[in-house]
Amino acid sequence: MEFMTGVKKTDLLELPELQDKSLAGQTVKVNGAVHTIRDMGDVAFVVLRKRDGLLQCVYEEGKAGFDLKDLKEAATVEMEGILNEEERAPGGIELRIRGLKILSSPCAPMPLPIAKWKLNTSLDAKLNMRSVSLRNIRERAKFKIQEGIVKGFRDFLYEQGFTEIHTPKIGAKSAEGGANLFKLDYFHRPAVLQQSPQLYKQMMVGVFDRVFETAPVFRAEKHNTKRHLNEYTSLDFEMGYISGFEDIMAMETGFLQYTMKLLEREYAKELKILNITLPKTDKIPAVRFDKAKELVAEKYNRRIRNPFDLEPEEETLIGQYFKEEYDADFVFVTHYPSKKRPFYAMDDPEDSRFTLSFDLLYHGLEITTGGQRIHDYNMLVEKIAAKGMDQEGLEQYLDTFRYGMPPHGGLGIGMERLTMKLVGEDNVRETTLYPRDLSRLEP
Amino acid sequence: MEFMTGVKKTDLLELPELQDKSLAGQTVKVNGAVHTIRDMGDVAFVVLRKRDGLLQCVYEEGKAGFDLKDLKEAATVEMEGILNEEERAPGGIELRIRGLKILSSPCAPMPLPIAKWKLNTSLDAKLNMRSVSLRNIRERAKFKIQEGIVKGFRDFLYEQGFTEIHTPKIGAKSAEGGANLFKLDYFHRPAVLQQSPQLYKQMMVGVFDRVFETAPVFRAEKHNTKRHLNEYTSLDFEMGYISGFEDIMAMETGFLQYTMKLLEREYAKELKILNITLPKTDKIPAVRFDKAKELVAEKYNRRIRNPFDLEPEEETLIGQYFKEEYDADFVFVTHYPSKKRPFYAMDDPEDSRFTLSFDLLYHGLEITTGGQRIHDYNMLVEKIAAKGMDQEGLEQYLDTFRYGMPPHGGLGIGMERLTMKLVGEDNVRETTLYPRDLSRLEP
Repeated sequence: MEFMTGVKKTDLLELPELQDKSLAGQTVKVNGAVHTIRDMGDVAFVVLRKRDGLLQCVYEEGKAGFDLKDLKEAATVEMEGILNEEERAPGGIELRIRGLKILSSPCAPMPLPIAKWKLNTSLDAKLNMRSVSLRNIRERAKFKIQEGIVKGFRDFLYEQGFTEIHTPKIGAKSAEGGANLFKLDYFHRPAVLQQSPQLYKQMMVGVFDRVFETAPVFRAEKHNTKRHLNEYTSLDFEMGYISGFEDIMAMETGFLQYTMKLLEREYAKELKILNITLPKTDKIPAVRFDKAKELVAEKYNRRIRNPFDLEPEEETLIGQYFKEEYDADFVFVTHYPSKKRPFYAMDDPEDSRFTLSFDLLYHGLEITTGGQRIHDYNMLVEKIAAKGMDQEGLEQYLDTFRYGMPPHGGLGIGMERLTMKLVGEDNVRETTLYPRDLSRLEP
Repeated sequence: MEFMTGVKKTDLLELPELQDKSLAGQTVKVNGAVHTIRDMGDVAFVVLRKRDGLLQCVYEEGKAGFDLKDLKEAATVEMEGILNEEERAPGGIELRIRGLKILSSPCAPMPLPIAKWKLNTSLDAKLNMRSVSLRNIRERAKFKIQEGIVKGFRDFLYEQGFTEIHTPKIGAKSAEGGANLFKLDYFHRPAVLQQSPQLYKQMMVGVFDRVFETAPVFRAEKHNTKRHLNEYTSLDFEMGYISGFEDIMAMETGFLQYTMKLLEREYAKELKILNITLPKTDKIPAVRFDKAKELVAEKYNRRIRNPFDLEPEEETLIGQYFKEEYDADFVFVTHYPSKKRPFYAMDDPEDSRFTLSFDLLYHGLEITTGGQRIHDYNMLVEKIAAKGMDQEGLEQYLDTFRYGMPPHGGLGIGMERLTMKLVGEDNVRETTLYPRDLSRLEP
C-alpha cells in the first residue's frame, strides 16, 4: 500500500531560496517558463519566469548541453546550472546553464509582447487574452497587490475578533429589493442572485457579534462606466455592540492602516514593480454629506443642484478638496440622506432626513458604503412600512430582531475598486481578473 | 474637522482579557447578550453570551443597581461588576454585578431553548430559525471549526507559494459543460452559474504557477440526499510544474496536517465543546479505483456490478475497509475511469481507460475530486473532439495552452462536507449556514 505523508521535498529551488549566499558557485536546479530569449551570438540570455519573479539564465554554446534553437519562448522547462552573483541581473543572481529538460512547448508564437516592461496594449486586447497578458510582470503584480488587500482585510478582522462566514448567493429575495437583480429559475421557482450579503451578515451578528465575508456580489445595473462591474468581490463586515457609526469608520481606518503595513512588508516587490506610493491612512477626515457639498460648491464655484444627492463630479471634487486642504487620500462622507439609503439604515435621531451612514471616498471615488443599522424590531417594521415594502420573504430576518439584537453596523468594500485606486489605474477592469459588464460574459 | 485615526480603545473587556489574573477583585465592564437567567431567590445567575464563550454574572439583590425583573433573556447589555475567580463557572471567572445598562430588548420570548447544552431540535426547525438556533453554543461552535478549516486552507497555501484569485461566477459557458447548470438571463444573453472555477484556475496556472480560490459554486442537481447541496463553498487549488498527480495528493495531505494542527492550537475551545477527536493525517493510504473495488468486494462479499463506476455504498465500504485494516480516517482512491471524468482530465498513458486522478474519501464520503490535467494543446483539442464536445466558448481557455502551459493539476474540496465529517454530523445542512437544496431557497 502506498501512503501520502505530506508535501514532498524537491531539489528544484524557488527564487527566495536562490537568494541564499552560500549557494554561489553551486550547481542548482530550477524550473519555470521561458519568458524571453536574447541571443547575443556565442552567449544568450534565457530569462525564466517564476512565481516570485524573473531569473536570468546564461546560455553558453557547448556548455549548456543543448542547442539554443531547440528552446522556444513560452516553453516550460527544468534547468540545471551554476548559480552566480550578478548585480546587473534581476535579484542579483544568474544561472549558467548546464542542462535542460523541456516540460512543455507552445504551438504558436506569443501574440503579445509580454516580456516588455510595459505592455502597451489596449484594455480590450488584454482582456481578450487575459491568461497571456497577465504573464507580463507588471500586469501580474496588480493581482498580487489585490491578494494583499484581501489578506489584510481577513487578517486584521481575525485579530479584531471577527468570524468568517459563507452566505448563499442564490435566494428568493435580496437585501435592497427592487430592480438591479439578476433573475434565475431555481427548480421552477423564481430566484435572484444576491446583490449583497447584508441581511445574512446582520443575522449573524446576533450569533458571532462580529462577522465578515469576502465573496462575489451581483448587480444587474445597466451602467457602462469605468467604475462599474456587474459582478464584483465585496469585502463585507458587520459588528455588534457599537456605540455609534463612528466605530465602523474607525474599524475601516484600522483595516487600511493594517493593510498598508502588510503591503509594505510582504508585497514590497510588487509595490516597486508598479511604482506605487501608498496612500496616507494615519488620520482620515470625516465630513457631513451636506457640509461636503457646501465646501466644494464654495471652493470650486459650483451650484448645488440637489441637496439630497451626490453627483460623481461632486465626489471627485470632494476628493480634490480634501487632498488640497488636508493632503488626505481618503475621506469619509457621513450622514447620507435617508431616501438614498435602504430600509435597514438607521436614521439620525436628530434629523431623520439623514442617516447614521457613510461612504469612504479614495481620491474622489466611492470604495465603501457603510453605516449603523436599525436593531429595534418595531423600528424596523415601521421603516419597512414607511418605505412601502412588503415583509414577505423577510420573516427570518425580522425574527432575528424580535428575539433581540445588539446595536450594530457594518460596511462593504469593492475589492476591485480599492485595488484599482491603489495601483493607480482608472478603469476597474484593469484590476478584475475576468470582468463581467454589459458586453463581457466570456471567457 | 473630525478625523478617524484607527480602532478606538474601549474599557469593555472581552473574555480572553478577563482571564488576566491581575484583574481579580477589580471592577470591570463587559457587554453581551443575556443567554440565560437562573433565579435562585436572593441571588441569581445571569449568563452573558459573548463572542468567545459564556460569562457567569452574579446578581445580588440590592447590590446590582437594578431590579432583576427588568432584565430579560436575549436582551443585550453592558454590565459593570467585580471580577472574581470561581472555578465552577465557565472559564473559571465570574462577575458580581454592580451596574447595568440595557442596550436592546427582545419583543418575544425565545422560541428555542438555546441555553441548553444540546439543542434537541429537528434540523428543519433549526434551519427555519437559523439566526436563533446558532446562538446555542454547540451549534455556533461548528461554524468556528468551519472557519478554522478555511483559514488552514489559505494559510497553508500562502506558505506554499500559492496566489489567491477571484474568478467570475456568471459566465457564458461552464467547466464541465452539459446539464446541472443554473441558467440566467444576462442582459438578454443566455448565461450560467459556474459549477467550478476549473477553467479559470487552470488559465491562471500559466500566470502565477500556483493558485487557489475559496468561493461558491452552483450545481443544479436534483439530488435530495444528506450530502448534496445546490450551492456550496469550494476550496480549490491548482498547481503547475508537478511531476505527477501524486504531488497534488501530497499537497492535500499537507493541508490536512497543517489544518489539524491549526485547529488544535486556535480552536481548542470548540473542539472541546463538540467533543471532537481529530482524524489521523500523518499517512493517508492511496489505492487504485479498480483495486479498491476488489478489496471491498472480497472482504464484504459483494459482487462488482460495474467495474467503471463507484456506488455510494462502495465508497462507504472503502472507508470502512481502510479504517479496519489501516486505522485510516482518509483514503485516496486513484485512477478513476476516463468516461467518468471531464475532458480536461489527463488519461493514464499506461491505460487510457483510466485517468491520473483521484477522490479523497473521509470515513467513506467523497470530500475532494482532483487530478492531473492535460497541458498539451493538441492533446486537449483531440480530447474535446473525442468527448463529442464543441470548442465554442473555449477559445481563450484553449489559447492558454497554445501559448504554453506547464504540467499541472489541482483539486476541489467541499467545505461543508469536510466540516460535517470533522464535527461528526451526518447531514451536510448541519454545517451549512443557509443551505440551498431542492426545497430551501430562503431566507
